[in-house]
Amino acid sequence: MTRGACVAAVGCLCVATLLSVATGCAAARDVRAAAPSVDSALPSWRDGAARAAIVDFAARTTDPASVDFVPEPERIAVFDNDGTLWAEQPMYVQLAFIVDRVKALRAAHSEWETTEPFASLLKGDAKAVAAQGEHALGALVAATHGGMTDDEFRAAVRGWLATARHPTTGLRYDAMVYQPMLEVLAYLRANGYRTFIVSGGGVDFVRAFATEAYGIPSDQVIGSTAKYRHETRDGVPTVAKTGEIDFVDDGKGKPVGIASRIGMRPRIAFGNSDGDFEMLAWTTAGQGARLGVLIHHTDAEREWAYDRASPIGKLVRGLDEAPARGWTVVDMARDWSVIYPETK
Amino acid sequence: MTRGACVAAVGCLCVATLLSVATGCAAARDVRAAAPSVDSALPSWRDGAARAAIVDFAARTTDPASVDFVPEPERIAVFDNDGTLWAEQPMYVQLAFIVDRVKALRAAHSEWETTEPFASLLKGDAKAVAAQGEHALGALVAATHGGMTDDEFRAAVRGWLATARHPTTGLRYDAMVYQPMLEVLAYLRANGYRTFIVSGGGVDFVRAFATEAYGIPSDQVIGSTAKYRHETRDGVPTVAKTGEIDFVDDGKGKPVGIASRIGMRPRIAFGNSDGDFEMLAWTTAGQGARLGVLIHHTDAEREWAYDRASPIGKLVRGLDEAPARGWTVVDMARDWSVIYPETK
Repeated sequence: MTRGACVAAVGCLCVATLLSVATGCAAARDVRAAAPSVDSALPSWRDGAARAAIVDFAARTTDPASVDFVPEPERIAVFDNDGTLWAEQPMYVQLAFIVDRVKALRAAHSEWETTEPFASLLKGDAKAVAAQGEHALGALVAATHGGMTDDEFRAAVRGWLATARHPTTGLRYDAMVYQPMLEVLAYLRANGYRTFIVSGGGVDFVRAFATEAYGIPSDQVIGSTAKYRHETRDGVPTVAKTGEIDFVDDGKGKPVGIASRIGMRPRIAFGNSDGDFEMLAWTTAGQGARLGVLIHHTDAEREWAYDRASPIGKLVRGLDEAPARGWTVVDMARDWSVIYPETK
Repeated sequence: MTRGACVAAVGCLCVATLLSVATGCAAARDVRAAAPSVDSALPSWRDGAARAAIVDFAARTTDPASVDFVPEPERIAVFDNDGTLWAEQPMYVQLAFIVDRVKALRAAHSEWETTEPFASLLKGDAKAVAAQGEHALGALVAATHGGMTDDEFRAAVRGWLATARHPTTGLRYDAMVYQPMLEVLAYLRANGYRTFIVSGGGVDFVRAFATEAYGIPSDQVIGSTAKYRHETRDGVPTVAKTGEIDFVDDGKGKPVGIASRIGMRPRIAFGNSDGDFEMLAWTTAGQGARLGVLIHHTDAEREWAYDRASPIGKLVRGLDEAPARGWTVVDMARDWSVIYPETK
């Protein structure tokens, strides 16, 4: 995802995209390739340069006889979430959660009917919300994310994911993870890599589903964070989220978040937008074997096709500089035989 | 460790203890108990209530038939570092590093000879440094930790650890880890627990040796942090430490650091001082099976004996409230047959 044009807010979600409707068509058809891969690894990846780059890198860095061998403690792979591990169109999933949450809390907040930005949001007037800028988004995040403990917030997200459906595919949002990327995560872990999410989205939002959806434990999720507050409620110590922004994990924030939380430069970075540019650039500037991969959304039929002109997931600099930087660009339409997992 | 009386500084090290000299005697004698344990787990723990509490907790929480069963993703165990995993007397190891680093950088900083707090420190005048308060400590941390990349800082710490020796034992500092705690870490990991360090010390300092000393990867180290800055040096993207404090991981900061970095309340918490009180209180206030353990430094012969009156590792409230809170108190002199690992 890119949130470069966005404001410093928890989850850093573009107000401009609020309530926007997808113009591209998105279908969840499972079009498994007829021809099986020559290798059992990464079965949803068609043979080609992208798949070869991943498999070759894993082989070289785990072979003690190779000059590119990487000791296991240094096998760190980082992944953007929105647009890299799951779909981000027509709006970031967290934004859909915020919208629904405001609606769900409406009855208990009659003042919202006449208070901005809630009034405009409840009327479905995205432009009016957007016109109110950063402050409005901060108010929405604080109202929908603040004051809860981790357990309470996680339960709210999980309850929402269980019932919400994507506006065009009709799928659960967490069914719109990318099957080829689930295979990459499992494949790298089988090769001794530890996999981390580095998301511009709110860390607690992503943590609510990361373990179930991706097999990634909550401490291996890095994201934008609100400040926490230690407080005693009825004599019981708790840690509660505030609505106050602590850290925005996007653009230059991604290398900073990784340095702070992981304490090591990764060997592998996957992203899909210019919000991931600095993460890939920092990762691949390290000494020794490094792998940078961009997921290019080229599949208007099975997913969405977007890059340079998209308000969400804008990808310009990455495309321009990938060849010179040696980054692998995945052509989703060509390289992936399947987009989403088979629906259970 | 406790840093309750300390200021908000990276590493949060007490100026008052700077260059202080241990009054207690510390010897590194290996006094392995003659009688082997009834169980092969935790061989350096003598049979007793403390050992039984740990073994019993691991058994109950990993038995699917037990009401206390904990699913593997929730098996999180957190450990204070100074005084819990390694020795903290007569001064925090990080402080010894700072002192030596100022001396090492002296030749390149002739201005320090006449600039405070460096001039006093170089003269060995701890009292004069302490009298200058927070600002002085901040200056020392910035001068010795700031401006370096992670790799540079880690190399500096490792180089120091390889040559520095403890003033009374003559051992390398990283040889003064507690053998019984190494066994607890390994034992819990063998039972599916993931082990984290939650230190009031600087996170990068602890990360420099945590993997080798404890088998804990750098991302499972939480600590006090300086802000990082993304910058391009000679066209190469880097992330460098600044001297500016971002987060102090002590007291109430420990639950906040855990919530922020791990995103989950731990099942097990080990500490040794009132700086760990809130971490143990928050951990053991959670629903289901929880284990809180305090290491009580009672062994003046083999390590140090200190608690209520010690400027380092002060332990008052923890001792007072442990029985009512159901926390296990480890009597180091009685419960541990060995203190340090056999020197290689």
